[in-house]
Amino acid sequence: MKERILAETERLFWKYGVRSVTMEDIAKQLGISKKTIYQHFADKEQILYQVILDKMGKNQSEMACMHVEKDNPVEEILQVLSMMQKQADHISPNLLIDVKRYYPQAFALFRQYKEEHIMHSILENIQKGISQGLYRSDINPTILARLRVEQIELAFDNDIFPTDQYSMHDIQSELIHHFVRGMLTEKGFTIYNQYVKQYNHEVKEYKKDSSDLAAYVAK
Amino acid sequence: MKERILAETERLFWKYGVRSVTMEDIAKQLGISKKTIYQHFADKEQILYQVILDKMGKNQSEMACMHVEKDNPVEEILQVLSMMQKQADHISPNLLIDVKRYYPQAFALFRQYKEEHIMHSILENIQKGISQGLYRSDINPTILARLRVEQIELAFDNDIFPTDQYSMHDIQSELIHHFVRGMLTEKGFTIYNQYVKQYNHEVKEYKKDSSDLAAYVAK
Repeated sequence: MKERILAETERLFWKYGVRSVTMEDIAKQLGISKKTIYQHFADKEQILYQVILDKMGKNQSEMACMHVEKDNPVEEILQVLSMMQKQADHISPNLLIDVKRYYPQAFALFRQYKEEHIMHSILENIQKGISQGLYRSDINPTILARLRVEQIELAFDNDIFPTDQYSMHDIQSELIHHFVRGMLTEKGFTIYNQYVKQYNHEVKEYKKDSSDLAAYVAK
Repeated sequence: MKERILAETERLFWKYGVRSVTMEDIAKQLGISKKTIYQHFADKEQILYQVILDKMGKNQSEMACMHVEKDNPVEEILQVLSMMQKQADHISPNLLIDVKRYYPQAFALFRQYKEEHIMHSILENIQKGISQGLYRSDINPTILARLRVEQIELAFDNDIFPTDQYSMHDIQSELIHHFVRGMLTEKGFTIYNQYVKQYNHEVKEYKKDSSDLAAYVAK
């Protein structure tokens, strides 16, 4: 039951943010009583906390996989974009805004994850890129890794990128491509251009998949 | 007298930040009584407010000048770096940190300036770069202009770039060069490389000037 509650609540959070989802909504969706939920969780914030912990575990394994699969850092970082975009389509822009504004404990958890894992994995990517001659050797890896980490949060900042003017898709894509290009050497650009060609093809395939999915959901 | 108070206080703020400078210090430096200062300003925050307003006026004219002098956007943006670095050598990293943390009204003024003028001038730079074929035509100018505006504040964030680990000089240089490179076309790179060569020469000249200045101040 605990797992079912977590899974359903996560789905609702991603879709509507945290604030507007009530314990009532969760119970209704699962066809159970609120009492059953309270047997497992003290409040909504505790569910949120657990959802983030689980998510982090999952993301870490996904990222770890990517490290194994891709030995080319340019492809690796653009693959992260592709992964984020697939996720972004299902995320309410309210999610991170809500967490940041109203759930400080959960947000601290996100920040800690950012510090420990995202920073580490970007730094590793940059160092690999430099050693393979794809990124400039004269960049300062920690300054740029910090910049990239902050960009992730920036993209979710509703004051900077109002959701009615920008799509998460466009922001993430613009920022990551700009970030990678700013580091590339000539050799790096060759690899980058090859990947972009192949990636654009993938995006089209993915969009086709999505619309199939949309049709399915609408049934 | 008002002008003298403003000039001296600005110098002290730049050198020590805002928090650690007292009305007593300002009076002492000017060889006047605190009473004289209070005839012109209600408190330190009011002086700060006026200093920022004046500074904004000055910066705007400097930027306007640059627009007249440089018709090449790559050179223009790197010239801003050069200007910022010359200033950064005389700025206490505490300044923006203090303002952000303890003087919300003054910080709001800075944000407004950022919104109206910095955003506008970067956006103009990007659009000029695209129309001259120096920046990629497939970038989204407003997303990247926003990114650049936020980077300015990021560089002053002590949690992200602790002042004992990074120099303002290095952060600004790393971020601006990375920012420009991420937008360049092949034609843009030619211009950029030319400028960097010339600029490195200028930096050496400037460092020589600085040390002369340091020798003078030490007398």
